[in-house]
Amino acid sequence: MAEYSIGLDLGGTNLRAAAITRSGEMLGIRKGKTAFAEGRDAIVGDMVEAIRELRDEHGAADLSGIGVVVPGFIELKNGVIRSSNNLTSLENFPLRDALSQQLGAPVILENDANAAALGEKWIGAGRTVDDLILITLGTGIGGGIIAGGKILTGYMGMAGEVGHISIDPMGNPCGCGNRGCVEKHASATAVSAMARLMLGQAYTSKEVYDMAMGGNERAKVIFEVMGESLGRLLAMLINAFNFPLYLLSGGPLDAWDLFAPAMLAEVHKRSVTARLTDTKIAKAELGNQAGLFGAAYLPWVK
Amino acid sequence: MAEYSIGLDLGGTNLRAAAITRSGEMLGIRKGKTAFAEGRDAIVGDMVEAIRELRDEHGAADLSGIGVVVPGFIELKNGVIRSSNNLTSLENFPLRDALSQQLGAPVILENDANAAALGEKWIGAGRTVDDLILITLGTGIGGGIIAGGKILTGYMGMAGEVGHISIDPMGNPCGCGNRGCVEKHASATAVSAMARLMLGQAYTSKEVYDMAMGGNERAKVIFEVMGESLGRLLAMLINAFNFPLYLLSGGPLDAWDLFAPAMLAEVHKRSVTARLTDTKIAKAELGNQAGLFGAAYLPWVK
Repeated sequence: MAEYSIGLDLGGTNLRAAAITRSGEMLGIRKGKTAFAEGRDAIVGDMVEAIRELRDEHGAADLSGIGVVVPGFIELKNGVIRSSNNLTSLENFPLRDALSQQLGAPVILENDANAAALGEKWIGAGRTVDDLILITLGTGIGGGIIAGGKILTGYMGMAGEVGHISIDPMGNPCGCGNRGCVEKHASATAVSAMARLMLGQAYTSKEVYDMAMGGNERAKVIFEVMGESLGRLLAMLINAFNFPLYLLSGGPLDAWDLFAPAMLAEVHKRSVTARLTDTKIAKAELGNQAGLFGAAYLPWVK
Repeated sequence: MAEYSIGLDLGGTNLRAAAITRSGEMLGIRKGKTAFAEGRDAIVGDMVEAIRELRDEHGAADLSGIGVVVPGFIELKNGVIRSSNNLTSLENFPLRDALSQQLGAPVILENDANAAALGEKWIGAGRTVDDLILITLGTGIGGGIIAGGKILTGYMGMAGEVGHISIDPMGNPCGCGNRGCVEKHASATAVSAMARLMLGQAYTSKEVYDMAMGGNERAKVIFEVMGESLGRLLAMLINAFNFPLYLLSGGPLDAWDLFAPAMLAEVHKRSVTARLTDTKIAKAELGNQAGLFGAAYLPWVK
């Protein structure tokens, strides 16, 4: 049998676990709903069961390790979720140690966006580089940083959480206390908020996309503004990190052709580093499986 | 004899080299002017001579390695200075290999701001952490990033060159093509430019400092604005990196009491990460010797 590891990605709605070989081949997968309503023990029980089934099926002898990724801020030292929008019942609970104890094996716990960046580095759009930043676009904006092939975690796993970087000191006020947070100007939520102002109704970002594709000029402008805002964020990151690769992922990527030209023009204008060095901005490749692959890769990179 | 290394810091005006032990004790130092006018061979000759003298004096047997730091952008792979404001005669010349050949020993070449950050991490204000960012204030603004105890170089050693990060998309235009570059709002040059607008004359930052200390309200406001701009930069960096420590160095540090309150208030307002995690912003400790110490430390960390 080939050496493999088990990755588990616990999302707000779904739980997925997979056995994956060192070369990225998925040997088996378990999928389920996240059992919110039934509380902490049920969720932990589901996680343990999914991992145990995969281990039983593929053998403990060839198992390199277990990686588990969850949304939210994680205290890496002690493996505790400190805050999470979706998994409040797991907050301040020693999740890593509980899983490890029930499985009788070490478990590595990591933030989902960090893991997604690692997955892209391993077998996705970042497989040819050692340094990259992944920016995840959705209702908010998050991200993960890979430096020297490893996750840059920062003090508490919050490195790469770029959504609250301000791209305009006088921009939209944000609940975090800042103004001009990029997720207030370039997330799906921001697209919807701009639609309310410019199209008279808070259409979903998908609806605004359809209107833009249908020729609505104002809808097109909304995506240009979104691209400009992302370009400002990227210029900052490029100037700070000088990495060779910046990846974008998430639902709003469908609108790439609508926002990317403005984004790239803004980067070109605002980053001398981007102009002087070989800097690539591209789509991520693994979609919503990036975190799952990253989780599985954790035992091999830590 | 104790294990030691030799560090050399080649600045725009001065050349300094020192033999330093593993515990940070300086065994000997050589100082001289940078022989600009006499061209490349003379500069390289001076560097080789300073290093050779120290090696002869302290013995080749205990020498761990040689680190050389220079201003400008360095292609680390091949040890070539690609661009430098002050050392144009050394641009596109294989400096590292030339030094190495003439000395008959390997030489590590690094950017001076990166080395300064490393020096602070080794025996300066950052000695208790593994992750820090150093921001150097002067006529421009530069910096260096230490991640996991090592220099984060990025693609071409340009990581940490934070001076061209925009803190206001509509701010002052910069020669780099961007607007609102932090060095256009918070460097000594920016203080002087604000003085021209607010005090009727482009006083030096030292003069503005003296006026502020003498009670001039407008001069005080200039430092508040400088602090605010630095605070915006720091909030971005803290949100991106989540490191435990951010250090400031350079001449304008004398005005700390004038700009730091506004800077720290801005960080507090704009960075939820700073509010949630133990984030320290402090003065660097090694002054203009940080680069020299960092140069000497290079052989032990690479």
